[in-house]
Parts: sequence; structure tokens; C-alpha cells
Amino acid sequence: MNALSLYTDLAVSGDALDLLRAGVGSHSLIQARRPTSSVLAKAEPDPAFLHAEVAFGQPDLDSIRASERLRWIHLSSAGYTRYDTAAFRDFARQRGLRVTNSSQVYAQPCAEHVFSFMMAQSRALPVQLATRTANGSSDWFRLRTLPRSPRGQTVLILGYGTIAEHLIPLLAPFGMQITALRRQPRGDEAVRIIPPEQLAAVLPEIDHLVNFLPDNAASRQFVDESVLAALKPGAVFYNIGRGTTVDQSALDRALRSGRLAAAWLDVTEPEPLPDGHPLLSAPNCYITPHTAGGHHGEHAALVQHFLQNLRRFETNLPLIDQVI
Amino acid sequence: MNALSLYTDLAVSGDALDLLRAGVGSHSLIQARRPTSSVLAKAEPDPAFLHAEVAFGQPDLDSIRASERLRWIHLSSAGYTRYDTAAFRDFARQRGLRVTNSSQVYAQPCAEHVFSFMMAQSRALPVQLATRTANGSSDWFRLRTLPRSPRGQTVLILGYGTIAEHLIPLLAPFGMQITALRRQPRGDEAVRIIPPEQLAAVLPEIDHLVNFLPDNAASRQFVDESVLAALKPGAVFYNIGRGTTVDQSALDRALRSGRLAAAWLDVTEPEPLPDGHPLLSAPNCYITPHTAGGHHGEHAALVQHFLQNLRRFETNLPLIDQVI
Repeated sequence: MNALSLYTDLAVSGDALDLLRAGVGSHSLIQARRPTSSVLAKAEPDPAFLHAEVAFGQPDLDSIRASERLRWIHLSSAGYTRYDTAAFRDFARQRGLRVTNSSQVYAQPCAEHVFSFMMAQSRALPVQLATRTANGSSDWFRLRTLPRSPRGQTVLILGYGTIAEHLIPLLAPFGMQITALRRQPRGDEAVRIIPPEQLAAVLPEIDHLVNFLPDNAASRQFVDESVLAALKPGAVFYNIGRGTTVDQSALDRALRSGRLAAAWLDVTEPEPLPDGHPLLSAPNCYITPHTAGGHHGEHAALVQHFLQNLRRFETNLPLIDQVI
Repeated sequence: MNALSLYTDLAVSGDALDLLRAGVGSHSLIQARRPTSSVLAKAEPDPAFLHAEVAFGQPDLDSIRASERLRWIHLSSAGYTRYDTAAFRDFARQRGLRVTNSSQVYAQPCAEHVFSFMMAQSRALPVQLATRTANGSSDWFRLRTLPRSPRGQTVLILGYGTIAEHLIPLLAPFGMQITALRRQPRGDEAVRIIPPEQLAAVLPEIDHLVNFLPDNAASRQFVDESVLAALKPGAVFYNIGRGTTVDQSALDRALRSGRLAAAWLDVTEPEPLPDGHPLLSAPNCYITPHTAGGHHGEHAALVQHFLQNLRRFETNLPLIDQVI
């Protein structure tokens, strides 16, 4: 295949950039004048983009529409909300433009992150780590009886996909009863799948509600007052999807009433939550700053995932993680 | 079998006491005037103890020696330091006295506790939970690259026993390379076993050093300066055994020098650590207050474990968890 013109606005470490430069070989690599500061940020328009056939990073919609040569976009994120519209899909179809994402890079860390939440919750780590107390004290007796093993408990996963596929094996040693909600079951899932219509019937049995839903028109405020109220009393909520998929006021009420035992959130709306936001002081609400997908070696893994797809693009093989 | 005289100094919840009363059936149950406040405490001498054939709890050595009828002691702890001497073993042998402990009650919670430590460490949860930062900030970039998956990492377990047997299946999905140190290998262990003489050769490869050693003459300060210095730089130390098995000054130095990435301790010497103790301010030193064996339903589980052994004692079956 002829040399391609590749454009990247990725802000990565020098090592990862070296890996990218070496990996593109004889293709030409154009770097954005101002790399995007985050996989969640939106790039600024850049005239150099007009020449690109392949874009790797977070290209902005105006630049994409203006481009005449673009054939493939490889997103450096798992989320692709800004491209996930009927209008963009139509545009992409007409232009023969493919979009892939980096979900394989983030799926395992995300699964391990939410699993670490579940284990920390089961051993009541936040309170145990914060308490220095003598054996035999009343505080100590209380602390000792807080932990509840996940063994035999029930989990409902909202959004069966790559992260769920990585999480399920981690739960296996605990013999948990796992159900997942998926809008379009494929029949190859590793656990019992329910469609959205069966959600209400399942919720009263659920100890752990694990939300992986991405942000889109159908998912907004999916976890609302009615969902939280239907859960088994004392259930725990985890969110590794997007903050927009949750009615945060309802979540705050469920925590303050004690109906939910805890919430572990890697995503909120907005991020970070502003000073004084109710969830910052809600009881048993634990928040990490959208770092579930992060891991040592993340930048190199992003570049390697792109290069793996570049080899497939060169030889007309189906692309990995194609979303559009 | 004739009705036995059972003595207990166990301080448990009313429900568990009801379970015990119902479970002993036609045997007579003598309760200590002052129940021991903790499984780690030592009971006060009680004249009523003299009549007991079976003791359940933490009987003191003087009372045991004074007793003429005692045939079986079921300890409410996993640790049995105060009975684990040559003199007591001789005494027990001469008197036909058996000692069982409650290690099966605590093994699973202990395994899950240290596993929750490992997962929290791998996802850098303490710092992630304490940081509110914007996507794309320098803090955020730093946080994202802190997590390191346990996948493929190496674990050395000091003290292969019931807790290790419960931990190993939890590590299985991560494909970790597990080695355990055991003084007297039996050949039925689930992982590679090394004797103490091979410790020095193995330590430089170890990412996670997990200490389950009980307190006894051979284990005191087992984890000393030389052990900590030989570990792979950046290794993590976990202690679920006893605080006395560690040279805490050496541990403090290893943390402050950055040679150890973190220490997660459920046990210290003394407990709790006094105000101003260096380990309370050592970097990345996380301490829970000897609660690893605790769990919801602990009291009932202790009673059920004793009753299970009582049925075996009645019918001359081998006792579970016999240690002497």
C-alpha cells in the first residue's frame, strides 16, 4: 500500500511518541501543533488535518467534515459520544469513513478498577483504614462485623461489553450470581442476559449494581429514582460508565436515606464535582477522578493498539474495536 | 455419651449465644462471669472453670493447669501463641488434652481482606479516592499511570496454611506466579513451596510479599531488614499474621526510602500503634485495626464451628482445626 498521511493530536509521553514514530514506518506522521490534553478533551481545529487519511486521537467534528481525504479515525478513548449520532453515522457511511476506538486498552483496567471497588466495599476498607482502635473496644466489635463477603451475592451489570467480559472472570472465584442488561443480546454472553424490559423484575434481588453504560441519548439518567428505589435495601452502586447515565440527585437521596449502602463512582457529571456538591458529602460515597481506564503503560498500550489496527488497515483486514 | 460440662468465656451477640445454648442440647453450659472482651484477650481466672470438661473461648493457662477434668479446649481465635510452647504441649500430652482453634472461621475473611488490600494497591485507591482533579490536569495524568495490574506479577506467601488456601483461588484469574514458604512441606500444596533456606534466592523476584506468619519463637522479626532489602524494588508488603513477626523499624525505613512501594498491615506491635509511632506517618503505610478475620455473622460462625466440633467430640471423630 502507498504511504499514508497520518495525523495525531495525542498527548502522550515521549517514549510512547517514539514508539508511534517508529511504528508508522514509511507513512508520514503529522502531529497536532497543540496535542489534546486528555482523551476526554476536544481538539482544536488544525489546518494540517485537511491532508490526513488517518486520524489518531480526538479529532473535532468540523475538521472531519472539512476533510476530503480522511478514511479512518482511531479514537484514543473508549467513549465516542460526540460521534455517536445518526447524522455522523450517515456522514461516515457516505464518505466510507470508519471509526475505531481504544476500548481494548481500557477494558481490563476498568474491570480491575470496579473490582477493586467491590473488594474494598466488601471489607469496609474506607472505614477500617481510617480507624485506629483497640482490640475489644466497642468500635472494634462494630468494625469487625461490617465486612460482607461477595460470596454468593448477586450482581447486575448495566451494559454488557468488553469491560464486563473482563470483570466476569474476576468474580468467578466468589460464586456470585451475575446478570447483565444488554439491549441487543448476541447469544454468546458468558452470563444471563436480560433486556431493559426485565430490569424492574430483577432489581429487588440485586446486591451490586455495576454501571458500564456509555453516554448516549438512550442512556441518559438511565439509573434514576425508580431504579435505585427498586434495588435490594443495602445494595451498592458502582459507576464506571458516564456520569450522565445517573440521576445524581436520586443517588444522593438513596445514600442519605441509607437505602443504598454505598456508591463507588469513577465518573460524575460534571467532572470533577464542584465544591459543595451534595455527593461530596453523601455518606459512603467514594469517588475516583475518572481514572478507571488508567494504568502504568497506558500511553504505550494506546500506541500499540493503534499500530495493530494500522497493520490491519494497510492490508484491508477488519479493524479491531470498530464502532462506526 | 454422657452430658458434658462446657465452659465458655466467649463474648458474643445475644443471637449467637442463643445459638450456642440451643446447640449444646443436654450438655450443661457454664458461662464465665466476665466474658472475654475479645478473641485476643486473656480471660480472668474463674472458679467455675474447675468443673469444665470442655472449654470454648480463651481459657487462661493457670485455670487450665488447675483443672482436673478438662479434656478439650476450643479456642475462639486462630492464633494460639500462649498455648504454643513445649511446656504446654507436654502438659497437654500427659493430660490427654486436645486444643482446637477457629482458624476455619477466619481463614476466608482473612484471605479476602488481604486480597482487597492487593486490589486497592493495584488501583492506587487511597490516592485516587483522596484526589479531586480535572481530566487533563497534571495530577490526573499522574494518577492515571499509577495503577499496575497484578496480572503476571509474583507473590510470595510467608506461612502456607488455611488462609493461603483461601487466597490462592482469588489470585487465579490474574495468572500470578505464586510461591509459598512453609517450614514443613506436605506435598499437597496448591503452589510452589520453598523452605526458609531458599528465601533469599526468591525475594529479588517478588512483587508482593504476603505475611501470614503466626506469633511464635521462630517467627519473631522474621521479616527483618535483610528480607525487606532483598525484595524487588517497588515491592509491596502485606501483614495479616502478627505484628511481632516484623521488624517495624526496618519496615519504616524501607517505606521512607521508597524501596517498598507500600505496606498494608492488619496487625502491628503493639495494637493499636501509639500516637506518634513512625509507621503512622510512613508514606504509603495503610493499617486496619486487626479486623481481617472479622465478618458479618462472625459470632454465629464461631458458635457453629464449635458445635460442629462438639458433635465430632461426642462421637470420637477427629476434631477439625486441631492444633495441639
